[in-house]
Amino acid sequence: MTTQQQSQLANNLFNQFLSVRALSVDHCAPLSAEDLNLQAAAFASPGKWHLAHTSWFFETFLLLPFLPNYECFDKSFAVLFNSYYNGIGEQHARHQRHLLSRPTRELVYRYREYVNEHMRQLFCNIEQHPETKDDILRRTRLGIHHEQQHQELFFTDLKYNFSVNPLAPAYSQAPEGLTTEFSNQPLDFIEYNGGLIDIGVDSETTDSEFAFDNESPRHKQYLEPFELANRLISNAEYQTFIDDGGYQRPELWLSDGWSCVQENVWQQPLYWREGSMEFTLGGLRARDPAAPVSHISAYEADAYARWAGARLPTEAEWEHAASQHAVQGNMLESGKLHPLRANQASDGISLQQLFGDCWEWTSSSYAPYPGFKAEASAIGEYNGKFMCNQLVLRGGSCVTAQSHIRASYRNFFYPPDRWQFSGLRLAKNYE
Amino acid sequence: MTTQQQSQLANNLFNQFLSVRALSVDHCAPLSAEDLNLQAAAFASPGKWHLAHTSWFFETFLLLPFLPNYECFDKSFAVLFNSYYNGIGEQHARHQRHLLSRPTRELVYRYREYVNEHMRQLFCNIEQHPETKDDILRRTRLGIHHEQQHQELFFTDLKYNFSVNPLAPAYSQAPEGLTTEFSNQPLDFIEYNGGLIDIGVDSETTDSEFAFDNESPRHKQYLEPFELANRLISNAEYQTFIDDGGYQRPELWLSDGWSCVQENVWQQPLYWREGSMEFTLGGLRARDPAAPVSHISAYEADAYARWAGARLPTEAEWEHAASQHAVQGNMLESGKLHPLRANQASDGISLQQLFGDCWEWTSSSYAPYPGFKAEASAIGEYNGKFMCNQLVLRGGSCVTAQSHIRASYRNFFYPPDRWQFSGLRLAKNYE
Amino acid sequence: MTTQQQSQLANNLFNQFLSVRALSVDHCAPLSAEDLNLQAAAFASPGKWHLAHTSWFFETFLLLPFLPNYECFDKSFAVLFNSYYNGIGEQHARHQRHLLSRPTRELVYRYREYVNEHMRQLFCNIEQHPETKDDILRRTRLGIHHEQQHQELFFTDLKYNFSVNPLAPAYSQAPEGLTTEFSNQPLDFIEYNGGLIDIGVDSETTDSEFAFDNESPRHKQYLEPFELANRLISNAEYQTFIDDGGYQRPELWLSDGWSCVQENVWQQPLYWREGSMEFTLGGLRARDPAAPVSHISAYEADAYARWAGARLPTEAEWEHAASQHAVQGNMLESGKLHPLRANQASDGISLQQLFGDCWEWTSSSYAPYPGFKAEASAIGEYNGKFMCNQLVLRGGSCVTAQSHIRASYRNFFYPPDRWQFSGLRLAKNYE
Amino acid sequence: MTTQQQSQLANNLFNQFLSVRALSVDHCAPLSAEDLNLQAAAFASPGKWHLAHTSWFFETFLLLPFLPNYECFDKSFAVLFNSYYNGIGEQHARHQRHLLSRPTRELVYRYREYVNEHMRQLFCNIEQHPETKDDILRRTRLGIHHEQQHQELFFTDLKYNFSVNPLAPAYSQAPEGLTTEFSNQPLDFIEYNGGLIDIGVDSETTDSEFAFDNESPRHKQYLEPFELANRLISNAEYQTFIDDGGYQRPELWLSDGWSCVQENVWQQPLYWREGSMEFTLGGLRARDPAAPVSHISAYEADAYARWAGARLPTEAEWEHAASQHAVQGNMLESGKLHPLRANQASDGISLQQLFGDCWEWTSSSYAPYPGFKAEASAIGEYNGKFMCNQLVLRGGSCVTAQSHIRASYRNFFYPPDRWQFSGLRLAKNYE
Repeated sequence: MTTQQQSQLANNLFNQFLSVRALSVDHCAPLSAEDLNLQAAAFASPGKWHLAHTSWFFETFLLLPFLPNYECFDKSFAVLFNSYYNGIGEQHARHQRHLLSRPTRELVYRYREYVNEHMRQLFCNIEQHPETKDDILRRTRLGIHHEQQHQELFFTDLKYNFSVNPLAPAYSQAPEGLTTEFSNQPLDFIEYNGGLIDIGVDSETTDSEFAFDNESPRHKQYLEPFELANRLISNAEYQTFIDDGGYQRPELWLSDGWSCVQENVWQQPLYWREGSMEFTLGGLRARDPAAPVSHISAYEADAYARWAGARLPTEAEWEHAASQHAVQGNMLESGKLHPLRANQASDGISLQQLFGDCWEWTSSSYAPYPGFKAEASAIGEYNGKFMCNQLVLRGGSCVTAQSHIRASYRNFFYPPDRWQFSGLRLAKNYE
Repeated sequence: MTTQQQSQLANNLFNQFLSVRALSVDHCAPLSAEDLNLQAAAFASPGKWHLAHTSWFFETFLLLPFLPNYECFDKSFAVLFNSYYNGIGEQHARHQRHLLSRPTRELVYRYREYVNEHMRQLFCNIEQHPETKDDILRRTRLGIHHEQQHQELFFTDLKYNFSVNPLAPAYSQAPEGLTTEFSNQPLDFIEYNGGLIDIGVDSETTDSEFAFDNESPRHKQYLEPFELANRLISNAEYQTFIDDGGYQRPELWLSDGWSCVQENVWQQPLYWREGSMEFTLGGLRARDPAAPVSHISAYEADAYARWAGARLPTEAEWEHAASQHAVQGNMLESGKLHPLRANQASDGISLQQLFGDCWEWTSSSYAPYPGFKAEASAIGEYNGKFMCNQLVLRGGSCVTAQSHIRASYRNFFYPPDRWQFSGLRLAKNYE
Repeated sequence: MTTQQQSQLANNLFNQFLSVRALSVDHCAPLSAEDLNLQAAAFASPGKWHLAHTSWFFETFLLLPFLPNYECFDKSFAVLFNSYYNGIGEQHARHQRHLLSRPTRELVYRYREYVNEHMRQLFCNIEQHPETKDDILRRTRLGIHHEQQHQELFFTDLKYNFSVNPLAPAYSQAPEGLTTEFSNQPLDFIEYNGGLIDIGVDSETTDSEFAFDNESPRHKQYLEPFELANRLISNAEYQTFIDDGGYQRPELWLSDGWSCVQENVWQQPLYWREGSMEFTLGGLRARDPAAPVSHISAYEADAYARWAGARLPTEAEWEHAASQHAVQGNMLESGKLHPLRANQASDGISLQQLFGDCWEWTSSSYAPYPGFKAEASAIGEYNGKFMCNQLVLRGGSCVTAQSHIRASYRNFFYPPDRWQFSGLRLAKNYE
Repeated sequence: MTTQQQSQLANNLFNQFLSVRALSVDHCAPLSAEDLNLQAAAFASPGKWHLAHTSWFFETFLLLPFLPNYECFDKSFAVLFNSYYNGIGEQHARHQRHLLSRPTRELVYRYREYVNEHMRQLFCNIEQHPETKDDILRRTRLGIHHEQQHQELFFTDLKYNFSVNPLAPAYSQAPEGLTTEFSNQPLDFIEYNGGLIDIGVDSETTDSEFAFDNESPRHKQYLEPFELANRLISNAEYQTFIDDGGYQRPELWLSDGWSCVQENVWQQPLYWREGSMEFTLGGLRARDPAAPVSHISAYEADAYARWAGARLPTEAEWEHAASQHAVQGNMLESGKLHPLRANQASDGISLQQLFGDCWEWTSSSYAPYPGFKAEASAIGEYNGKFMCNQLVLRGGSCVTAQSHIRASYRNFFYPPDRWQFSGLRLAKNYE
């Protein structure tokens, strides 16, 4: 690469940085200061916190180590906006984020601008320090994807935080096209031969496409022949499961799942409401029967699959199938902020709704790929230390940015978690 | 009373209403929207909630029953801002008040103005409905005192809500005079003969001074001779108790108190901080050793008293002594928002700090006076249903309005509660 | 008193000691080793633990301080069987008493004999140490009453521990006479003038009748005129309260009581079972409608009273009335182990069921009488440190020994407690 | 197979049944009735419960369906001793098993004999009902292995239940040879090529060796080259980890593991005690530094491995290596009831301690093998419904019967569980 090309690359990256950073602020426009400080559960952080934490990430992992004489915007932020990086130091308690009325929203915006401005300085001088340049580019790229992750969390958390208000506040007006004239795609299964296949990607390099460390290394897995459903399970199908006593029949459930149902008195997906309504980012709406069921736990997904005489796919099966498809679908850019029914106009035999709409639960425990190595420093805490007790979800949702998702992307949540846009696609053994 | 006098009386009351209502809003001036929505514990309601609930009180108990054709500002507020009146209906869960980002602060202010305006209409026509006039006056008077109570809670709750923020936010600049040049009053005991005495007041009438129903009826109690300390226990004295192993010696504590100390790992008053500092409504400050110790539970007050060879007064002893003194002291009007040392210039033999500074724990369980009757309707839930498991406190604090307190006033909290400005005055049997 | 009289007094006391000690063992005869180690809640100690703890009491407060060269039966018992005496030292955790399969039942019986034998030695030589004689007599008397208290707890705890077994085990065969041919006494109220009266007893002396320290000193209280019901509330009357929606109407309840009902989903007394049955120490039985309702909390007693247009008596009212009656009734000695209906044959105008049957909830908080002083040493922890958060009950129950109860006796439990034989007698203001 | 051979097979199985049944009773010989009813945590069932539940298994899955006119020993046992089979019906709450003082130990022994006697009848007539014969044999075989599992649980649960008693009771006298003269085997790693290998077994048939359904079907897995340690990690090695701050360094732990350590204040393995002692089934003992560390959670195993620059093996790696070795080691039959140091006399290059001593944590989530099918009826709840949130352990322990374990055996516990004899063997990527 020529020096000019390299310089162009850094320029492009910084512009990408600026546009992702601006997006975080844009997302807050319809909200009041109180809205931005809501936290209805430990897992649903306030929007203001996301704004600050993503800035802390750049300050901690880029400005402090690489920008000479950088002075922190506010020393107390090192603790207040550290999420879980023990290697950096103490963290303000997660469930108490809503108690930080100070710093105010205005101050957090100033913090963001301060960080942006110093990132600009860092990039202006990037060519003068060739020994750190690669690290800066690599970490900036990580920081950008980190901020995109938090933009997604911003919406899933906001949905949860609004959902507990009896007034059912709306983030935005009703997105068009939640229901459409054409009917849903019939559910069908597509066959795969399996065999010794490869999944994952080799560790990101400066030049290649970005991927998180947990997607590496690329490695072999042996798959028995299997089938995968052509689309996600719909609200109407899930309603049939409920009507058939799905939540009352222990034989359909994993043992931990059944305990969870009993303990939490679950009877339906998280945001379903009486009278065929559901809570959405546009407030209370009538459910589209043909749209994918969403906001279900892995336990519910698993029980549905067992009831349907099928099972959840493994992540290897999913990736093997998905890697043959382009990344397109109903994602953040559509502005719908809600899963949509599958497109009837499609050929009907290829996989639909792979990307966007809902994260798809797999039966695979989130575990290190053979040979996985986390980075040595605190930044290595990003993914690796969570490889226990969680399940992998694939494919992104309607609030995931298109530039953020790919076939090898591994998301992970605990089996009982329901506040994500999480749905299910059936799989079967091929017999 | 002449018609003119009566009309003047109603006028005066409405003016009092307006000035108390305005004060609630004034108190919010230094705060951001996020500040006003904080709730760090179930008991520490957001400021915004206090603003709305006090308006709900007038709407529910005056406008709806007495103003013809009154239309609610918002029907959902009936549930959202009902505190604990089961007779009115459902209540939004107390610990979730911080989740109400909507209605926004601005909307709550509009609600207040709406209620004020309709109260004005009610009073304009008050003479035309003589059959309801007395009820309106009586309930308005109650509503005013109710709002004053919530103004006090506004400050105690805000202090707690700010206290959990590592940034230690300040509501106001340092009040002057937290420490003064003259030294503290020596601790002395004043003797009382006791005997068959009277406490309490006879039920309020339209003409008399206001009192809550729990202060009635006036009745007899027999007191053994006793002694009462001339002032409150100071920070310095309480420090001596701590230094003497006060929090490590079970023999000084009630059994439930000792469990509470162990379970919560209490080592000092709620807002004491390292290095002789304490958290105040002005932020972190150096403790004045001569100022009264505050924010202690009844267990701590009791343990201190036992350690000091004394005991807590009963509420009858306190009222018997206090009723001989004028209501004056360091109260909300002083603007200090913090307890102050006793005035050295006093004669040294009379009771000091009786009113204001700190609520004083008594050993008396909060119970109905003989012959007590709560009102029949939902408004009767105001005081009576809490007469179990709580202890009486007397005298008001530095955030109590002077016009709100009197010798017969009975406040009540659970023994472990510490977020009130609660201190202690010693008593003894006279021997 | 002559020397001989004194010697006789000590002899009598030791014989009383032996007979009370033997009774504890007799009570265990129908039970298996597993039965004796049951503990279904922290408050319901295993029978074996009661056997050991009462022995520990004599060992700790008599043998160790007064018997020269006494050697402990087992040093570890000092911790294992200390209930709550911090002045003595550490205690084995209360809720883990059922985990002590060792020492076995047999070893605990040997421990009892060992203590008895050494108590005999102590009494044999009592006259040789006149300086300690009074302490020994006084503490032995206390130890005997302590053991009687635990005999009562043995039955109430056993009832609870058996009650959670779906097999509904019986301690004894059906006592005769649970239902009788004659109908219940009509409920009537008896008037009292009140005025300045005396309650309590002056501290016990070697010569007088025994009383616990919490019954002292005798002191004055002023009572308004009042009325007291002639008997306890019956199962049938309580059923009417339930049928009238008693457990669904918040206006009948104290605020804490209503929370308690909601949280625990209370719908009836603790041991009531479907089909008009109840769990008793004789297993499942049909309820006698005329027998006193039992095993209700203070909240339920209070709600019933409010529903009935009455109130609970204060302890002073109760004692003032009861002190005019002889101590007789359905107590442990009857062997019924269950409350019985009031005796129709009585004159119908005097108080019935005052002693025995059920402890009677009063509205009085358990607090020190004016001038109360607990003993200085660890033995002073017996009563005094519990004087907070509890309510006084009066009169004893069907499992209280007749020689253990008296008009001035103050029992105390927390308002939500229900595992005692606790019932209610109504009171009213005289108007 | 000839008829005679078939008959012989049934005979042999019934004799195996009798001898395993007798063993359960033999294990109880040293214990008192109280010992057999202990339950210190929900997971640590009383010995008496194990005795009854294993009988319930035969009654429910064999006698009731296959023995004509069989009458239950006691109808209430259907609920009391059902562990988790929702398909059968309700279950008595797991954490309340210690509350079943009734049925007494004696009655449970009678229950066992009753079941044995009726099993004899079933087998006497087995040839007369050829259509059910296979089911009877298959289920009896399952019941035998089920009882062996509970014999192991009997000891692990008893150890836990005794461990909380400050008296540290012993089940048996000190087994000989807990420490030996020869020193421990040096830790070494053995290389494996990996590749496409097979694990698991094909579903059990009447003729083959027994295996649980979760070990089926045999299937392919692709393994990267790896190394496996020649023996388990010893107490001494684990002590070095502790001394190096193992429990204080978050970077060594999985995120959930670190939370668990903080929350439970873990500082060492479950049964380690002060002064290099440990609690064993023989009471308190000095730890053998060369013996395998035991009673650690998967989190601790994982943290140790990370600290040692290694990792846990996957279950496929473990089985691939173990399947080349005979099943021998320190198991229940040795009577040691405690893990022993590896045998120095061994060649030093082959795997030691594979079977017996300690269950070995793997990094593999307990999941269905590809094509796994649970049985259709309630008996299918045995294994399948637990395939979530747990990790696989391999190899058996010092309290596993030798006839019960094999290379393909999959045990499973939650990552935080520590009351099993659970230790660790290191693995590495081969590089």
